[in-house]
Amino acid sequence: MKNNQAASTMPVHKYRPYQDQFSVDLPDRTWPANRITVAPRWCAVDLRDGNQALIDPMSPERKRIMFDLLVRMGYKEIEVGFPSASQTDFDFVRSLIEDGAIPDDVTIQVLTQAREHLIRRTYESIQGAKQAIVHLYNSTSVLQRDVVFREGKQGIIDLALFGARTCRALEATVPGTTVYYEYSPESFTGTELEFAVDISNQVIEIFEPTPERKVIINLPATVEMATPNAYADSIEWMSRHLAHRENVILSLHPHNDRGTAIAAAELGYLAGADRIEGCLFGNGERTGNVDLVALGINLFTQGIDPQIDFGNIDEVKRTAEYCNQLPVPERSPWAGDLVFTAFSGSHQDAIKKGFEAMAVEAAEKGRSVDDLLWAVPYLPIDPKDLGRSYEAVIRVNSQSGKGGVAYLLKTDHHLDLPRKLQIEFSGVVQAKTDADGGEVTSEQIWDVFTDEYLPATHDNPDAKWGRFELFSTRTSSDLGGVVNLSVDLRDSDTVAGATSSGNGPIAAFLGIMAERGISITLYDYVEHAMSAGGDATAASYVELDVNGKRFWGVGIDPDISTASLKAVVSAVNRGIRAEAGDRELAAV
Amino acid sequence: MKNNQAASTMPVHKYRPYQDQFSVDLPDRTWPANRITVAPRWCAVDLRDGNQALIDPMSPERKRIMFDLLVRMGYKEIEVGFPSASQTDFDFVRSLIEDGAIPDDVTIQVLTQAREHLIRRTYESIQGAKQAIVHLYNSTSVLQRDVVFREGKQGIIDLALFGARTCRALEATVPGTTVYYEYSPESFTGTELEFAVDISNQVIEIFEPTPERKVIINLPATVEMATPNAYADSIEWMSRHLAHRENVILSLHPHNDRGTAIAAAELGYLAGADRIEGCLFGNGERTGNVDLVALGINLFTQGIDPQIDFGNIDEVKRTAEYCNQLPVPERSPWAGDLVFTAFSGSHQDAIKKGFEAMAVEAAEKGRSVDDLLWAVPYLPIDPKDLGRSYEAVIRVNSQSGKGGVAYLLKTDHHLDLPRKLQIEFSGVVQAKTDADGGEVTSEQIWDVFTDEYLPATHDNPDAKWGRFELFSTRTSSDLGGVVNLSVDLRDSDTVAGATSSGNGPIAAFLGIMAERGISITLYDYVEHAMSAGGDATAASYVELDVNGKRFWGVGIDPDISTASLKAVVSAVNRGIRAEAGDRELAAV
Repeated sequence: MKNNQAASTMPVHKYRPYQDQFSVDLPDRTWPANRITVAPRWCAVDLRDGNQALIDPMSPERKRIMFDLLVRMGYKEIEVGFPSASQTDFDFVRSLIEDGAIPDDVTIQVLTQAREHLIRRTYESIQGAKQAIVHLYNSTSVLQRDVVFREGKQGIIDLALFGARTCRALEATVPGTTVYYEYSPESFTGTELEFAVDISNQVIEIFEPTPERKVIINLPATVEMATPNAYADSIEWMSRHLAHRENVILSLHPHNDRGTAIAAAELGYLAGADRIEGCLFGNGERTGNVDLVALGINLFTQGIDPQIDFGNIDEVKRTAEYCNQLPVPERSPWAGDLVFTAFSGSHQDAIKKGFEAMAVEAAEKGRSVDDLLWAVPYLPIDPKDLGRSYEAVIRVNSQSGKGGVAYLLKTDHHLDLPRKLQIEFSGVVQAKTDADGGEVTSEQIWDVFTDEYLPATHDNPDAKWGRFELFSTRTSSDLGGVVNLSVDLRDSDTVAGATSSGNGPIAAFLGIMAERGISITLYDYVEHAMSAGGDATAASYVELDVNGKRFWGVGIDPDISTASLKAVVSAVNRGIRAEAGDRELAAV
Repeated sequence: MKNNQAASTMPVHKYRPYQDQFSVDLPDRTWPANRITVAPRWCAVDLRDGNQALIDPMSPERKRIMFDLLVRMGYKEIEVGFPSASQTDFDFVRSLIEDGAIPDDVTIQVLTQAREHLIRRTYESIQGAKQAIVHLYNSTSVLQRDVVFREGKQGIIDLALFGARTCRALEATVPGTTVYYEYSPESFTGTELEFAVDISNQVIEIFEPTPERKVIINLPATVEMATPNAYADSIEWMSRHLAHRENVILSLHPHNDRGTAIAAAELGYLAGADRIEGCLFGNGERTGNVDLVALGINLFTQGIDPQIDFGNIDEVKRTAEYCNQLPVPERSPWAGDLVFTAFSGSHQDAIKKGFEAMAVEAAEKGRSVDDLLWAVPYLPIDPKDLGRSYEAVIRVNSQSGKGGVAYLLKTDHHLDLPRKLQIEFSGVVQAKTDADGGEVTSEQIWDVFTDEYLPATHDNPDAKWGRFELFSTRTSSDLGGVVNLSVDLRDSDTVAGATSSGNGPIAAFLGIMAERGISITLYDYVEHAMSAGGDATAASYVELDVNGKRFWGVGIDPDISTASLKAVVSAVNRGIRAEAGDRELAAV
């Protein structure tokens, strides 16, 4: 079988292999045979490295939400900013300290360059904290020395030592704070190992680490430049050559340029590292920092406690998306909308058999399924452990080539359903059509959709199964952040007016629902214009927790805010129906 | 420094380490010391494994577009479907053959289970192809044997051998086709290595490989279950134990459940594999198949020809997004919208110095910059090599905490700019405000935005710098896929009517522009409703190639299709202005 691949036109002459520039001689490497048995020390850098890579950096309010999330999840070391680089970062560090927002067992970390006025400013920022890690860095790479600093090695060392000595001298200015140190030879992956260890060891001498006050040496793959085994080799080499190794916490800081940051962190940890810096869902410069969620849950799949709580991954995701204003991709490990779905019939069949076998085993042993070892094909873990569920997605018309449910709704009805609603609705279609078998037409799908999500409209009296129905809406705003909402609302057989206010019409409407005993948390909200023939009708989609269970709702209206309120009504009606248990499909 | 991390509540008792289930004894492993020097054989499985993981499987039209793209990029082995599993897949394979769409040097691959009627149907599907790879698989994992097939090892072996013999017997039914074979012990990562090599070797004997007609043994990480070094160990072990190794093409098929598929492919290739199966941008079941784009460009960064053309990555991305109906994430390696951006001032400064140093070096050597080794900090490759550009993004108001440009446009003007437009506009703001220094207000940003993107409106005579302006639009459609468009259009000082038709209003309008000498390719199109106070005005954004250069345009109108035409006009006007060079900012 001939290999017919031919040379491309890519300008390969501009690049050369990493190993020709930075080689490690480590024939007796031990990391490939090592095993991970315990979680590393984690450091979350979402508020610094993550934040600096956002088109819209977090506001103080968003930063605080992120900080509180990280604390709640169990992170004990959190890099909270670069206080000498911006007033915003300085103010945020101060607000954490002054608001008493930092639990006693959490250590904040602040980044600084090795310049005196910046270090001074950094120490000012941590005044009053119980403890803090001062994270000193300077660039050590060949390229940065040549091109950016135009300095020889000694100049770069002098800069680092000056920074370290300045730090030590300023300790006296924060008498109430226990100061720990981290030093990063930045762009470590572009630095000769001999130089990286030399500068690190000289800095270590100045910091005088003890068993009680170890120093963190952090080795950043500022740019990921080689396969992850090369990074692991360099970490093992450094681990062997660092001075006072017993008093050094060796830390990794992988970026993901080549898409192998998770592997680099794992292999680097096998190679002797103690600690890993990263961001939730791999936010960060360019392709991102290493993904702390993937790393943590990867450990969990091996029966190793990540020492971080991922039990409500959707909440973590929603919060990160709000703070970062960036979506978590559909196929992001453990957290993406599609990672616990099965589309193929053979996968679905195997999964079904796996669940059945576990149920049988549990019954035989007289134990709960949750006490057994997890063993379901194509599902590497129980989605329930992350607060998620397994979703079997059918392919309507897969035999006819007409495409799927979502495609038909988009093509024929201009509705662009969010992924998770597509998955939910696919299950509704499956449940409603399983009995018939055979092909499902676009008309049947639309009937199922309108009956499921859009029944409560007074122009469609035949399908009125919902408890609530909107008859009119009026909003007013004083432009001061408060919207006043009045609605005429049918509740069962009674139509009556109701008013409330909030920071938007949905928030106000949730107040009206709460008065009627419906407790709602908003999980997701998406809207779009329907591109049909020049009108500008809007479609809104909401995912709500209605009295403890998740439901999507859909609203369509020429008025955007009315559409969103209709969507809330749709989800609430579905939730009430499911609670009543009066239609078996509602629980799908 | 105490580690304060505490035990989480995650149910770790449900899982156990991979190595406790599947261990490889390979103390003399060689792969960690190996180096990659040449591209592997690639096989793109977008049309099978990728397609089966889509909510909306590709239509025949979208499948053909994907196939043509893969061929154009240089892939020579392409899995085109599972023809015995669905009529759609069967028909698609037939259409490729009957349309003569398969170049002579491209080999299609078709998947089949080891059952007689399915194998027969598979051979019917490849009738008339010059050559084809018949890809036979059955599940061999411990879990699938126990739970799904309830068969002992011998039963599983018998199934595979029956399948292989049936294939051989059916060769006579396709006399004009050279048939090659691939066998996959599916769920290889959940299979004992001794069993995987045993069943593979028995299948190999039946296929009787020769140097001219090697057999492909494909070892899928159907579910990724361990760190990538464990996969590499298993590949090296298999490579040593496979019979007739010289006539076997050892193939990898990594999935990405743990986020380490790219690393697994690279380390597995170091461990002796010859071939890699994957999908563009990592589409595929759950978290996806391994990302062929990342793997290929990773090679390129080492000066190794991937033998695949990535010179226009945006076109590849756009086509894949159209076919898969899934976005490529912002931080996807080499292709995401944010991967060649720099937000931090120190990064931007270093990048600037890197470009300057290269220019100096080129001048000194009397050579083109493109003949030098690439050496710019924080940019692992020259974005130009992928048809992209480096973007420096400023942080407006980063000192004031009010947030960025995009945030202000969203909050104050209800415009939700696509990421790449956010980046483009950030540059425009920077260029227009650099002179002033200091803080930029939301009003100033809005002025810059309207002047840049929305000048040609007859209700804003002061800012009328654009050559074209829309005065009215009328569309009609016979519902047969053709839209007729009439517009009144100002071209410089003359307003005149114009008509055209296309499959949508934008397509028709591009015809009208072409008549006026403007050559346009549409790169991206996004629209949304503006949520301001109950009206339902639409905002449209288009990215166009205008006479060879890229520009975004923006249109706002209550009518969705008018908004999109206004956006085209906006981009065209900007393109013409840049061409004329009469305003220096246009080229930003």
